[in-house]
Amino acid sequence: LVPEKENFRSFSIRIMTRVCVLGAGYMGSAITFPLSDNGNGIHLWGTWLDNWILDECSRGQHPKLNKSIPENVSLFYAGELEEAIEDVEFLIIAVTSEGFVPVFQRALDAMKRSSPLFCLTKGFVPVSGEVNRISEVARCMFHEKFPGEEFRWVSVGGPVKAVELSDRVPTSTMFGMNSSVVTPLLRLFSTDYYFVSYCDDVCGVELCSAFKNVYAIGLGIYDGLYEVERDKYSHNLKSILFNQSVQEMALLIERAGGRRETAFGLSGIGDLYVTSASGRNRRFGEYLGKQYTPNDAYRLMNEEGEIAEGYHAVHHGMKFINTLENSLIEELPLFEMLYRIIVQNKNVEDELRRFLKGLGMQ
Amino acid sequence: LVPEKENFRSFSIRIMTRVCVLGAGYMGSAITFPLSDNGNGIHLWGTWLDNWILDECSRGQHPKLNKSIPENVSLFYAGELEEAIEDVEFLIIAVTSEGFVPVFQRALDAMKRSSPLFCLTKGFVPVSGEVNRISEVARCMFHEKFPGEEFRWVSVGGPVKAVELSDRVPTSTMFGMNSSVVTPLLRLFSTDYYFVSYCDDVCGVELCSAFKNVYAIGLGIYDGLYEVERDKYSHNLKSILFNQSVQEMALLIERAGGRRETAFGLSGIGDLYVTSASGRNRRFGEYLGKQYTPNDAYRLMNEEGEIAEGYHAVHHGMKFINTLENSLIEELPLFEMLYRIIVQNKNVEDELRRFLKGLGMQ
Repeated sequence: LVPEKENFRSFSIRIMTRVCVLGAGYMGSAITFPLSDNGNGIHLWGTWLDNWILDECSRGQHPKLNKSIPENVSLFYAGELEEAIEDVEFLIIAVTSEGFVPVFQRALDAMKRSSPLFCLTKGFVPVSGEVNRISEVARCMFHEKFPGEEFRWVSVGGPVKAVELSDRVPTSTMFGMNSSVVTPLLRLFSTDYYFVSYCDDVCGVELCSAFKNVYAIGLGIYDGLYEVERDKYSHNLKSILFNQSVQEMALLIERAGGRRETAFGLSGIGDLYVTSASGRNRRFGEYLGKQYTPNDAYRLMNEEGEIAEGYHAVHHGMKFINTLENSLIEELPLFEMLYRIIVQNKNVEDELRRFLKGLGMQ
Repeated sequence: LVPEKENFRSFSIRIMTRVCVLGAGYMGSAITFPLSDNGNGIHLWGTWLDNWILDECSRGQHPKLNKSIPENVSLFYAGELEEAIEDVEFLIIAVTSEGFVPVFQRALDAMKRSSPLFCLTKGFVPVSGEVNRISEVARCMFHEKFPGEEFRWVSVGGPVKAVELSDRVPTSTMFGMNSSVVTPLLRLFSTDYYFVSYCDDVCGVELCSAFKNVYAIGLGIYDGLYEVERDKYSHNLKSILFNQSVQEMALLIERAGGRRETAFGLSGIGDLYVTSASGRNRRFGEYLGKQYTPNDAYRLMNEEGEIAEGYHAVHHGMKFINTLENSLIEELPLFEMLYRIIVQNKNVEDELRRFLKGLGMQ
């Protein structure tokens, strides 16, 4: 179902637009594929941790996507940030949530004028003990540098496995924008394999992106626990977990000021479906289901060069929930279960039983 | 996670309530487990096609659930309908959609007074060339027998694989009721492994039950096509199908006069998640993905004693859609794709490509 090569440019923009992607990991590199197929020129900037990735890209192969990067992509090393963002139309931020503040601060320092910001980073940003949504943190940082200027922000969410996008298999995604000014830019992303939808609910898209990583761990735990014991495996029960995840995301968004519906679309159920079917957070959950401690599971994956972002999102998510409303956690029994397992090291089967007991009381 | 045997009756009702289940197939028999664990007395009536099932039950084993039926269940053969429904508090209808009208008519003929009706039958009922929701057909039939009396109806939907329920694994379900009079009866079903939620959207629950069988075929088709060719398999794309299924169900419900939210809960995403992960409709889809013709796939399953209800639901669903609004099908591209594959025998890969092309145009 991958479109024919000659069709890639059916949506192409004849005048080449220059954009800069910050972060050369999975998603940052994958997004260059539709952008390049549309004829844009992409500056792919690697952080100080990405040097080895850029080295291998130069040698012909992106080491995580296992293919060469597209033709319209130029590589920039950590020290070349100023050159990378010079004269670009907009920035795409695709570093990890831990890397967000230092990288975005450096970018702001180097920016000569304000530009729209697209964000592929998922999760929460801890700033001096507080936890906040990335867009809120970014807004403050932005206005320190550009007081009075419009903060144009797009949170990119939705069901996208980076390797698949770089294989050009059909992929849908949701862009949550705070300003209609950026709408015309969406054409630069849209191809006949990368389908861009958009909405005005930055908060919803952002919270889905963060929390689906947490809930995907839950579904992974379930599979880890029972996949070897088929007679104990239950689709009924797994579906309870999936449905509950979506309902809790909808509630979280609502209480945080976003729109419930966002959880019921591509960025919510769509992304949770992908994230729980495969990927790092799901795998982290599987380890937990197989009785690894959270720290061991995290370390194990780290040794393989992978970070389970959901692990951090559970810690930060709880802090975020507490900033909203003190008793909100009582309405989020599945999140609480995951917190107890992942942060408080409780036994997975006991916790699952406890969660189910709560359902029975309704 | 199956509760301890001694806990089964934690929700039990001390005064035994007598209920009758019409249909001794998967779901009719499975629902007797929570009912029996709650101390109810269940009359399980088999249709004229169920004689062999009852025979085997008497010999000790339900042939589809592969276990003995619960202790509080009495068996009634097709000819014993009057005895089966005498003095029961309410009826549970669990026959196939094809069997619904003849069975319900016989039951009405035998009923001495009106009673609440719980319906586990899914799909549409064709009556003299027209297609309608089961509850609407039932309402007309009911009022012919009991003019002026209150039609108390509960559509039971949600993510329940019958075999798993009969294994007493934790299971959530949604009861869509048209009358709050029946609310107290829900306690008769609730156990510490069968969690009953309810809403007032009969239309939504009913349409989800019917259409998720259709959409589960779609997800089965995808797996059938690509599961052997892992390099062509894409979670991004499968997630497009899952999300699109839910959005189309929500739209269908809305246009039919129900509530969109119903598609975003247990009866929609919950049930689709289960139905597309395993089961008959999914398997029917897999055959189509492996290039069997719809008729061959249907026949093959029939020979194994299984009916893919989604096959009928596609035919009937299209008629139902046309009764709502002539151009509605244009807003349901995934349903249309499935109709073209299943009813018009079009090639699956061509149709998937066509569907995706439509998404790109948005």
